[in-house]
Amino acid sequence: MTTASDMMEKVRRTCPLVHHITNYVTVNDCANMCICAGGSPVMTDAEKDVPDMVKLASAVVLNIGTLNDRTIGSMLLAGKTANSLGIPVILDPVGVGATPYRTETAWRILDEVKIAVIKGNHGEISVLAGSGGKVRGVDSVSSSDDIASSARELALRTGAIVAATGPVDYVSDGKAVITLRNGSKFMGTVSGTGCMLSSVTGAYIGACGVSLESVASAVSVFTIASEVAVRDGKVFGPGSFRTKLFDSLYNLKTEDVDTLLKRD
Amino acid sequence: MTTASDMMEKVRRTCPLVHHITNYVTVNDCANMCICAGGSPVMTDAEKDVPDMVKLASAVVLNIGTLNDRTIGSMLLAGKTANSLGIPVILDPVGVGATPYRTETAWRILDEVKIAVIKGNHGEISVLAGSGGKVRGVDSVSSSDDIASSARELALRTGAIVAATGPVDYVSDGKAVITLRNGSKFMGTVSGTGCMLSSVTGAYIGACGVSLESVASAVSVFTIASEVAVRDGKVFGPGSFRTKLFDSLYNLKTEDVDTLLKRD
Amino acid sequence: MTTASDMMEKVRRTCPLVHHITNYVTVNDCANMCICAGGSPVMTDAEKDVPDMVKLASAVVLNIGTLNDRTIGSMLLAGKTANSLGIPVILDPVGVGATPYRTETAWRILDEVKIAVIKGNHGEISVLAGSGGKVRGVDSVSSSDDIASSARELALRTGAIVAATGPVDYVSDGKAVITLRNGSKFMGTVSGTGCMLSSVTGAYIGACGVSLESVASAVSVFTIASEVAVRDGKVFGPGSFRTKLFDSLYNLKTEDVDTLLKRD
Repeated sequence: MTTASDMMEKVRRTCPLVHHITNYVTVNDCANMCICAGGSPVMTDAEKDVPDMVKLASAVVLNIGTLNDRTIGSMLLAGKTANSLGIPVILDPVGVGATPYRTETAWRILDEVKIAVIKGNHGEISVLAGSGGKVRGVDSVSSSDDIASSARELALRTGAIVAATGPVDYVSDGKAVITLRNGSKFMGTVSGTGCMLSSVTGAYIGACGVSLESVASAVSVFTIASEVAVRDGKVFGPGSFRTKLFDSLYNLKTEDVDTLLKRD
Repeated sequence: MTTASDMMEKVRRTCPLVHHITNYVTVNDCANMCICAGGSPVMTDAEKDVPDMVKLASAVVLNIGTLNDRTIGSMLLAGKTANSLGIPVILDPVGVGATPYRTETAWRILDEVKIAVIKGNHGEISVLAGSGGKVRGVDSVSSSDDIASSARELALRTGAIVAATGPVDYVSDGKAVITLRNGSKFMGTVSGTGCMLSSVTGAYIGACGVSLESVASAVSVFTIASEVAVRDGKVFGPGSFRTKLFDSLYNLKTEDVDTLLKRD
Repeated sequence: MTTASDMMEKVRRTCPLVHHITNYVTVNDCANMCICAGGSPVMTDAEKDVPDMVKLASAVVLNIGTLNDRTIGSMLLAGKTANSLGIPVILDPVGVGATPYRTETAWRILDEVKIAVIKGNHGEISVLAGSGGKVRGVDSVSSSDDIASSARELALRTGAIVAATGPVDYVSDGKAVITLRNGSKFMGTVSGTGCMLSSVTGAYIGACGVSLESVASAVSVFTIASEVAVRDGKVFGPGSFRTKLFDSLYNLKTEDVDTLLKRD
């Protein structure tokens, strides 16, 4: 089996181009976190530019954080272009369940585009799985009691690898569910750590292919980086945490990934 | 009287959802500062999404920093929806007076939406009060000699609580004027500290209601956080200041608010 | 001859207003770096707002990082307005050569607007010079062997001062080529350091006029700031580097510019 640290090394070696159509709130952190993971981010959302850029990419991230009719069209175009070329597409259904527009858009993308990975918080994944999650704004406020089942159910229904992130992270391909227990309490204090993980995941599936293992590795590397970030006691709040999270992911050692990994 | 530190605790306890239609320059810092204040930020500007998201919010922030015809329509819709539901709306008239488009838009919003709070720099408030301020780009370059009177006059005319921020901050409800003297010289070296304060104010009026005291408390807590940020001598410039401002606001102690508050 | 440190002081003294139409990925860092250089940034891209804001500016930065048809129209309008008023315009042709839309847009701007400065990475400048560079996403992956010649050739053809940035930076007016050898390896680990340099260059040509020397000074001051940022050994990765780069540019001493400058 290829381990998370093997995959981390492969991402760094191959520097996959990750095309994003994402929100304007956290886009800069997504770009920088993608670089820190070893990828090369690019963002463009004009319909005239999207197909040509997608062709160059190893993975495409669609994030509906600040969607509008123009960018939804661009997301569908990016997704279909990627599908026709065999380039994997990640959907981050930010705020799905909070408003009808977001819910309809997430399902429209899932209907019209073959999505390889769905990455959402517990509430978002529960909403999509139809198991009763609740999303307030863009934050998960409640989810099904059994988020692992929701992740598996949604994976089964969509054919995507599903990552449901929160205090505990679950990754499922519709059969197995991997439970991941790394992370830092500071993750929830910075806007867009979920978005950043989607960008990191783009780099992982771009370099290592789409699999339960590649998605789980992206989650593990990112969350282990958050633990290493706070380890030396120099994180005092959300500002210093974010700064150190970039440094930590960029410098993460394979032995830290191997020894700190909490997975069952 | 409820003190600023009481309100700070209430915001943290209730975590109000603050909906923003704001500029793409400083939006990430606004989201993160809103979190550090204890709120939950959400940004969406599509007309199809705005009314449903506004319904979930405790306050709405309209910031005209990078306006265009599409987002002006969304701002008006957000404002009117909020009005119909009794949700308070803050206007941050970024760059009003610098160009006719900004001036006309600020007045159009003030005409069509009942604004609960206007938060601007000295120049912007003077321009809106008609007392001769000057705005260059988005920076205040001159204001009326008596900015306290301008704030009171604008509050009286619009029925909003008015916060005029700068080296000294003034908050007025059209009768009283509170003068606040906290802050750091580094505040002016980071783009968007005014926008961030509007987001923080959104959290305060969302949690504590609209009043002279809740707006003044938001200003005090944010500016006291800027003093605490530099207190340990580890701020060397705008970069380290911004990082520490997030940490400082997030960790701010009630006793620091109580002892450092400079108000007359 | 006016030295780079003289120009640095002049920018700080005069605080030129720099109008930007730029991408939403790195826009916040551009604004903050412009402030740290001594300028005053403003961003607006609505056609109704652009001409009035351009009139107030000392320089205009056009950056095609996340272009769309609406903002291309605004860029052309901004450029033509600036031309009619004698305000210098910088073009940052982000990702030119990666897609036809970007290439066509860069040339359309060069055709319709008199551009004072073109600032691109080695790949982008090679593409525009027709000497065989390659751009992947927004990163330079290969350039002509002789990037100095490409910069000179492009300057000759367009009449612009051309800055080609990378491990070594070249600035040419079509006759002379200045070679600049300052910088840090961390520059390539943060998204948008090229965009930030365009904003800094806006402040320099806004304050000091358009010349081979003013553009070379902007490049030198920014890259020397990156060396000073890492000098005390407290940069551990992209996150801490970015924070310290803001501080370093803001605090840069004339003697550091004078003694660290590597130019031939």
